[in-house]
Amino acid sequence: MVKEIKVAPMHKLIKRAGASRVSEESAIALGKALEEIGVKVAREAIDFAEHAGRKTVKARDIEIAAQKVMAR
Amino acid sequence: MVKEIKVAPMHKLIKRAGASRVSEESAIALGKALEEIGVKVAREAIDFAEHAGRKTVKARDIEIAAQKVMAR
Repeated sequence: MVKEIKVAPMHKLIKRAGASRVSEESAIALGKALEEIGVKVAREAIDFAEHAGRKTVKARDIEIAAQKVMAR
Repeated sequence: MVKEIKVAPMHKLIKRAGASRVSEESAIALGKALEEIGVKVAREAIDFAEHAGRKTVKARDIEIAAQKVMAR
């Protein structure tokens, strides 16, 4: 588990999505879920970059990877 | 756009997923993608909480919502 996403921004995100009250554990759960999705997207994006003969991951790699991961 | 997820943790996440080099724009793109997914998950979770007669979003609401959003 990478643990790059902090709890406070997840709390704010859920609040701004319209929640009356947000439990600490729900903010932790959202960070965990997004981190897992983020790793999946990043791995797909790295594959795309490598396939294109690049060592640098670019925005378009992430965008295609995110669409692919979400479409599953 | 909520803009709670910062660029630096996204950069680290892509690096740790195995990237040789990570462009700034790809880190921005990942933050944007995860934020959009996060808002979708949060909105579904709020629906689940309200449906259960709760005002507080709990971890299980997020977990069910994340599965639902990812399964689409």
